[in-house]
Amino acid sequence: MIELLVKVGNKRRWFTASWLKGSTVYAIDQRLLPFRFKIVALKTHYETAEAIKNMTIRGAGSIGAVAAFACAQAVLECKSSEWPKKALLGFERIANTRPTARDLFFAIERIKQSIANKKLGEAKKAALKEAKKISKEYQENGKLIGMFGAKLIKDGCKILTHCNAGWLALHDWGSALAPIYFAKRLHKKVFVFVDETRPRLQGAKLTAWELANENIEHAIIADNSAGFYMQKSEVDLCIVGADRIASNGDVANKIGTYEKAVLAKENGIPFYVAAPLSTFDFKCKSGKHIPIEERAEEEVLFVLGYEKDLRKVRIAPKKSKAKNPAFDVTPAKYIKGIITEHGIIKPKRSTIKKLAKKSKKVRK
Amino acid sequence: MIELLVKVGNKRRWFTASWLKGSTVYAIDQRLLPFRFKIVALKTHYETAEAIKNMTIRGAGSIGAVAAFACAQAVLECKSSEWPKKALLGFERIANTRPTARDLFFAIERIKQSIANKKLGEAKKAALKEAKKISKEYQENGKLIGMFGAKLIKDGCKILTHCNAGWLALHDWGSALAPIYFAKRLHKKVFVFVDETRPRLQGAKLTAWELANENIEHAIIADNSAGFYMQKSEVDLCIVGADRIASNGDVANKIGTYEKAVLAKENGIPFYVAAPLSTFDFKCKSGKHIPIEERAEEEVLFVLGYEKDLRKVRIAPKKSKAKNPAFDVTPAKYIKGIITEHGIIKPKRSTIKKLAKKSKKVRK
Repeated sequence: MIELLVKVGNKRRWFTASWLKGSTVYAIDQRLLPFRFKIVALKTHYETAEAIKNMTIRGAGSIGAVAAFACAQAVLECKSSEWPKKALLGFERIANTRPTARDLFFAIERIKQSIANKKLGEAKKAALKEAKKISKEYQENGKLIGMFGAKLIKDGCKILTHCNAGWLALHDWGSALAPIYFAKRLHKKVFVFVDETRPRLQGAKLTAWELANENIEHAIIADNSAGFYMQKSEVDLCIVGADRIASNGDVANKIGTYEKAVLAKENGIPFYVAAPLSTFDFKCKSGKHIPIEERAEEEVLFVLGYEKDLRKVRIAPKKSKAKNPAFDVTPAKYIKGIITEHGIIKPKRSTIKKLAKKSKKVRK
Repeated sequence: MIELLVKVGNKRRWFTASWLKGSTVYAIDQRLLPFRFKIVALKTHYETAEAIKNMTIRGAGSIGAVAAFACAQAVLECKSSEWPKKALLGFERIANTRPTARDLFFAIERIKQSIANKKLGEAKKAALKEAKKISKEYQENGKLIGMFGAKLIKDGCKILTHCNAGWLALHDWGSALAPIYFAKRLHKKVFVFVDETRPRLQGAKLTAWELANENIEHAIIADNSAGFYMQKSEVDLCIVGADRIASNGDVANKIGTYEKAVLAKENGIPFYVAAPLSTFDFKCKSGKHIPIEERAEEEVLFVLGYEKDLRKVRIAPKKSKAKNPAFDVTPAKYIKGIITEHGIIKPKRSTIKKLAKKSKKVRK
């Protein structure tokens, strides 16, 4: 497992982005990093669903793992008289938190299958077991993604990444950052351009924090500067995560990913997406069919930062409105390959069809 | 003149971005908008140069006008015994504030020519006269840019702009925003997508403030969202300003402009640059020869916003560094046309050569 050693007070301790203990979900509050390291305890599936929605927990894999935990909670909270109706209502509540994130629905489906036709007592055991299994799979898949992806990274490589697809986003290795962490362990020297990733600044706040913890050389850049460094041939490789991948290889990921992919293509820089099979929506024909979450204007009009304490400052006139799509779709033609736990694949319908079959086998 | 009517206290008053009265330069402090409307009084060329450097005053045309004022101050401050050495040292100080901005050097050259071979008494009069003339020319040229550019804007047009190239940037009409203001006066309905323009947020802070004052419908977007709206065919036209235009039509402008231009081309959206002749560097062969200003890391690592009062909040880990190029170069091939006070031209060497000749004639 990766060294997610975080200094808390005077001690360095091991952490994972989220975990289940008894019927409580624990998670690092990603809204407060890098300013404050706080573990939240989510006692019911209501609280856990809210934590996914308000982005206390975010990142494709972490959403998947925590959604699985939340589903287990919904089952554990059921009384015999309410079974299975109340649990299913809970699943629906969990499903309604983040419309674009494929891993959310993947996890819910897995838990649903695990409890199908079971009595409550058995279902509770099965849901808990399956949730923990899903969480563990993310850890293992992240490591495999790291292993396959590290092959793309030469010594001295300069890599651009967007948003956060590291430990916090897919415990414990990450997706886009896993190859970088793996390459580091192979003693390769890397430098990372970190897109700050407005509006929520997951790059500046989370990716930079992870890289600093890993002692990986990096620089935060305004999202506007990515093209500048690509044009100057200072970027060798781009790796990003994904929130949903359609069966033709189109990828929905954090807003701005499409911009960086177009610029990478224009400048002849290989652009890779890193994601486990759980992020693939094999039934989704193309990017056009991926629902895009529109979040609150406030995320654009205000910035959460730190001055003696956490402060939410306004950065725009009171009269002005904002638009805030949380994701965009990068057409497959801009993507050189998708790094999965089964190796690096081409973003093509035929390849993804094979992967879908593999995915079914793995699950049997 | 445009209605730069700003509500100050209970009254609405007319303003221009900067002006010279006696030997004092007055300017709207653009660092504090939209939160606070404050006029700074700059009594010496040292203060004025510092105000250009620290971006109290910014925007190609405003830098040009204020640089002209600063040069006049440097001449006015001269004693007979110091003439012309001290004035020339002052010009050098003014020239060293913003390396990319062509208008800065244009204005300094103009003042230099106006005082050439003159005695101090005459030079003082000449410098003052020339500085005021330069300032007036910006006003007139902005209006002409507005007039020519407005022809590109159809009723119901949705326009994307980057950074701020309005009243504040080129008094009193602007460059990129002048066509929009002109179209509004022709009763055309427009909608503006305002790139917030990290790191300094001139879009969210200044362009949005100008548009709100002009009652023009707009939405602030994270820079990352521009490609999203282009891909969805929601942008009909892009107009940006310029900080320096090379003789082959390559354009240096606020960081991120290159990204938007590539995306516009990819999506078949016409991309225009608006700038007066003073922004053209006729001796500069191509964009490769334009010096790019690298500003402080702090501009990326902190955000100035408002919570009860102005606050500068940190948005990144203390251990992380940043890179902050202030401009990028958009190769001519991505630009459909340049809107000047002489009409809309193609960004080609032959056309710009003709413009250079025209520019010399105008000046005679």
